[in-house]
Amino acid sequence: MVWLEGKKILALCGGVGGAKLALGLTHVLPPEQLSLAVNTGDDFTHLGLSISPDLDTVIYTLAGIGDTSSGWGRGAEQWLCMETLQQLGADSWFQLGDKDLGLHLFRSELLRRGLNLSEVTAKICEKFSVRHPVFPMSDDPVATLIDTEEGLLPFQHYFVKQQCRPRVTDIRFDGAERSAISPGLAQALVDPELGGVIICPSNPYLSIDPMLALPEMRAALADLPVPVLAVAPLVGGAAIKGPTAKIMAELGVAATTQSVAQHYADFLTAYVLDEQDQGEEFPAGVALHSCNTVMKNLEEKVALAEQCLGFMQRSI
Amino acid sequence: MVWLEGKKILALCGGVGGAKLALGLTHVLPPEQLSLAVNTGDDFTHLGLSISPDLDTVIYTLAGIGDTSSGWGRGAEQWLCMETLQQLGADSWFQLGDKDLGLHLFRSELLRRGLNLSEVTAKICEKFSVRHPVFPMSDDPVATLIDTEEGLLPFQHYFVKQQCRPRVTDIRFDGAERSAISPGLAQALVDPELGGVIICPSNPYLSIDPMLALPEMRAALADLPVPVLAVAPLVGGAAIKGPTAKIMAELGVAATTQSVAQHYADFLTAYVLDEQDQGEEFPAGVALHSCNTVMKNLEEKVALAEQCLGFMQRSI
Repeated sequence: MVWLEGKKILALCGGVGGAKLALGLTHVLPPEQLSLAVNTGDDFTHLGLSISPDLDTVIYTLAGIGDTSSGWGRGAEQWLCMETLQQLGADSWFQLGDKDLGLHLFRSELLRRGLNLSEVTAKICEKFSVRHPVFPMSDDPVATLIDTEEGLLPFQHYFVKQQCRPRVTDIRFDGAERSAISPGLAQALVDPELGGVIICPSNPYLSIDPMLALPEMRAALADLPVPVLAVAPLVGGAAIKGPTAKIMAELGVAATTQSVAQHYADFLTAYVLDEQDQGEEFPAGVALHSCNTVMKNLEEKVALAEQCLGFMQRSI
Repeated sequence: MVWLEGKKILALCGGVGGAKLALGLTHVLPPEQLSLAVNTGDDFTHLGLSISPDLDTVIYTLAGIGDTSSGWGRGAEQWLCMETLQQLGADSWFQLGDKDLGLHLFRSELLRRGLNLSEVTAKICEKFSVRHPVFPMSDDPVATLIDTEEGLLPFQHYFVKQQCRPRVTDIRFDGAERSAISPGLAQALVDPELGGVIICPSNPYLSIDPMLALPEMRAALADLPVPVLAVAPLVGGAAIKGPTAKIMAELGVAATTQSVAQHYADFLTAYVLDEQDQGEEFPAGVALHSCNTVMKNLEEKVALAEQCLGFMQRSI
């Protein structure tokens, strides 16, 4: 398909689920027509390494070097460094693969030398031959903090160390109000060639909300003269992967595609939901489209990307 | 053999050559009777990691997990992280094995948390089941700097990156005069049970001199009431491994066992040289013993350790 005669798409995404659609989009749109803004609320420092899990997932996925079974980390990975860390009794709850470690060492070194995260990300993409622009949502530190019945947990402690077990009572984005959206994201939002925004099927609360918590971000999306389309991250009331439905229930929100649309209601204009989830009670003014949204292979990723773009084009 | 009815030995050593005799000594003396002070002039920070090459070599060797063919690094090592670093265009001249990396991450993390190098080293030894006390020569940073005809080079740049190619004009130990000898080394030197000091066959200029540059260290050795024995690091005018002979020639010193004895003349009381090198012109007052000093296997390491201890005992 030819999308809107050269108009550009900005995709917002988190980790595993978002990266799947991002990969599909890169097969449909050339680098000049697609840029990807990635959540950095999950970023943290671990054993002195600056780790950006969602950026890594997106980059590995687009570079074709990711682990396709888990959706995160490198393919054909090994874990000898982890074995040493375990033997030494170091923190070993966060899995650091041997190949993956090279990227963390490289990013950490460049950040120490004074490059910002956008610059480092651009360098990594170049070296891994990722041609579509990928940038962090912000170059400033934003830390997703999970308030739980077991206390306030840094994101990775909740997500990885505790495997999302604690009951969530609130989610905060520490530093978001003081952070600027990254130059790449800022430029994409005001680009006169922008044809639409796609919110990938990432966890709305953990992966997309950190971006929406950045100053002016919600308003910028609401004011856009082009479609803002989201892909529902739930199918039949359940997440393909991850704790979206569990968190929604814990926060007292019905774990439905409707609730997610409602969550985005102030800027959403188009919504793609799974064919299992056709229904009513969606926010007024949001155009609906249903199709298969489960992406088990590259063909389904490309197909969903095409469905999104086609629907967006028709709904203008 | 039973060494001096419970008297203790302090061994000073650098990397590969020193670690060989250190291993031999640990097979002859129990942990209560042997402690090892290790050169830290080679230590440096690389990609944010605090690396102590000589401590690592000694610890890996004593733990039986070192690479026995090269003498440094871990055995059965893999290099996936290095491959990523190379792909990213990061500094890759210093070989960081995947297993080895776990130790660097662990040490760096503990140093950042405020432990000193002695404390970190003790923890590492405990985890790797190294029972003999191993400590750094100092907890303060000392940096061996090599003045060459191509300019002043940090040690690892000279030794690893440039493979010892530049012609050496001088060697300095930056920070040595401001550094204190480590608690373990200080205690060993004044221990009333100390029976002797063994200077392992490490490079005198690169591995032993950094220790001798610490305040009071030469005087402390000279004032000891017990034998100070060195094992010649040259056999037939050549080093088993490393640039000892090359550096001596560049510094205008004859590359002979005699020169090394002369280098230690102010504190040396006993000298073990290879049977190939029996000769004259050794410093007055130094007892000589010749035997095989080439340690190609564990038996030869243990045999040299026994030769050193037996000779020391006889020369009292």
